[in-house]
Amino acid sequence: VQTIIAVTSNKFAPLAQWTRLFAASGADVRVADIDDMTINVKEVAYALCFRPQAGRLAQFPNLRLIISLGAGVDHLTSDPSLPAAVPIARMSTDQTRDQMADYVAWACLSLLRDVPRMRNAQAAHEWEQFSIGRTARDCRVGILGLGAMGMSAASCLQGIGFKVKGWVRRPRPGGEIDCLCREEGLRELAAQSDILVCMLPSSPALHGIIDQSILALMPRGAGIVNVARGEHVVVPDLLAALEAGQLGSAVLDVLPQEPLPASDPLWDHPNIIVTPHLASIVSMQTAADHAVMLISAMERDETPTYLFDRIKGY
Amino acid sequence: VQTIIAVTSNKFAPLAQWTRLFAASGADVRVADIDDMTINVKEVAYALCFRPQAGRLAQFPNLRLIISLGAGVDHLTSDPSLPAAVPIARMSTDQTRDQMADYVAWACLSLLRDVPRMRNAQAAHEWEQFSIGRTARDCRVGILGLGAMGMSAASCLQGIGFKVKGWVRRPRPGGEIDCLCREEGLRELAAQSDILVCMLPSSPALHGIIDQSILALMPRGAGIVNVARGEHVVVPDLLAALEAGQLGSAVLDVLPQEPLPASDPLWDHPNIIVTPHLASIVSMQTAADHAVMLISAMERDETPTYLFDRIKGY
Repeated sequence: VQTIIAVTSNKFAPLAQWTRLFAASGADVRVADIDDMTINVKEVAYALCFRPQAGRLAQFPNLRLIISLGAGVDHLTSDPSLPAAVPIARMSTDQTRDQMADYVAWACLSLLRDVPRMRNAQAAHEWEQFSIGRTARDCRVGILGLGAMGMSAASCLQGIGFKVKGWVRRPRPGGEIDCLCREEGLRELAAQSDILVCMLPSSPALHGIIDQSILALMPRGAGIVNVARGEHVVVPDLLAALEAGQLGSAVLDVLPQEPLPASDPLWDHPNIIVTPHLASIVSMQTAADHAVMLISAMERDETPTYLFDRIKGY
Repeated sequence: VQTIIAVTSNKFAPLAQWTRLFAASGADVRVADIDDMTINVKEVAYALCFRPQAGRLAQFPNLRLIISLGAGVDHLTSDPSLPAAVPIARMSTDQTRDQMADYVAWACLSLLRDVPRMRNAQAAHEWEQFSIGRTARDCRVGILGLGAMGMSAASCLQGIGFKVKGWVRRPRPGGEIDCLCREEGLRELAAQSDILVCMLPSSPALHGIIDQSILALMPRGAGIVNVARGEHVVVPDLLAALEAGQLGSAVLDVLPQEPLPASDPLWDHPNIIVTPHLASIVSMQTAADHAVMLISAMERDETPTYLFDRIKGY
């Protein structure tokens, strides 16, 4: 009897394609749609999924590992019936880290050069030449959260010339990026950052962390990039800071409500770039390769990499 | 009698500010507006200018050096009465090179991630999630023209992870960037480039160099960035290649006609980002510092740096 890997499939990630990819990898697993109610739930040893139906994972009594299709796991932990004893692996690959670094570099350059203003001028057919004296070398970027993605973005930004510092849970002496810790470190970093990039994990304790009190500490005209979770930024505070000119502009890839409703005023804000949570999306090929690597480790009784730590919250 | 430096002044670069900057530098020059008809033309030894009135520079019999406020000098050489014996210095500073590198990095990342599609979706209030599997490490950028700005952009792009090659006039063995030469080299580079960046000098011989024949050689869905001169790109060919899907998107900072007329259809093209010739604009402070450095060299009878070579055309 082959073990089953239950996968999230949809029109962007069809079951037939998952089946082909796992077959090509030589892994000894049978692929089934996680929502297929005809499968023998006892045979499901692995799940590769994004936002499964609440209660579904609890139906697999022999589940050995849950593999998240995203870097975050809040789409799993929000299910109160999530089996507490089953380890969860996060999606962390060269592809997803590089994609995130590319996006964050693009977002910081967009804020550095006031791309929202260029975008508005193009839409209005206005040839509005302006000069930003400063370059990346004059621009200080503070990154909140230096996990694998945060480190990848930090190193890419340094390569461009940005001056990068980080805010982390525990001190990291001797690292390549200067880091600050604790609440006073966050306040200090905000005061020193022309751009703050939020790359924090989705832990509820961090919700609302970028609020009026932090925005007020930043240099006038500063920028915000959020590629973590919409809940990290207090949107009314962000809008008030933009309105007051305290904040210059923002790039938001994540929003408190996703999809952002068509009627939301954020879409038309002249100083905001909204993108639909696409900063880093794993390809099916990379996800399958990553899953096969994790499953092999499990089958050899080794501890797979990139496990979610339920105590730390990431 | 103090020598005069005749400067281009306008509302963005007021005469009073130029005067303050040169006074602060300690340079022994008197600053005058180049269009001031009351100045003694015999006292004008230097001109720091952008697109002066045709014929004006020929009125200064003792002119020793013309300093361009831009990296290009076509705004000077288009004047048929330009004094042939007076050397021309180009604006080349850390600030202008870094600005250009920041812009080119932003433009290439915008094409890599299909930012025009994100922009259109935001304008339409559409949450249209999509994934570009590739990252900068999978993306080959060909840079046409590796002058000081081209080299600066090439090195910034390499730092992000892009695979960079260049197209240059003469072979440069052993350099940090692989280079191709001559017409067959251009065709080879086009065939190998997911993005072509035009950073060529404004020489008339290079006008129309990016035409249908080059675009047709590029990989399907490729991108074009033009930060040199509008004349380098044959816009009808570019539009036809976009229409046919041969080209995916383009970022154009320079256009055949500037300002781009409000009625031009380029403004609304769904696959084009238009910006108003602002990739690299020198600040007054940096321009004055650069001019003082060049003038000091002249006063010491040294050859100033960054002289325009009338034979090479750059």
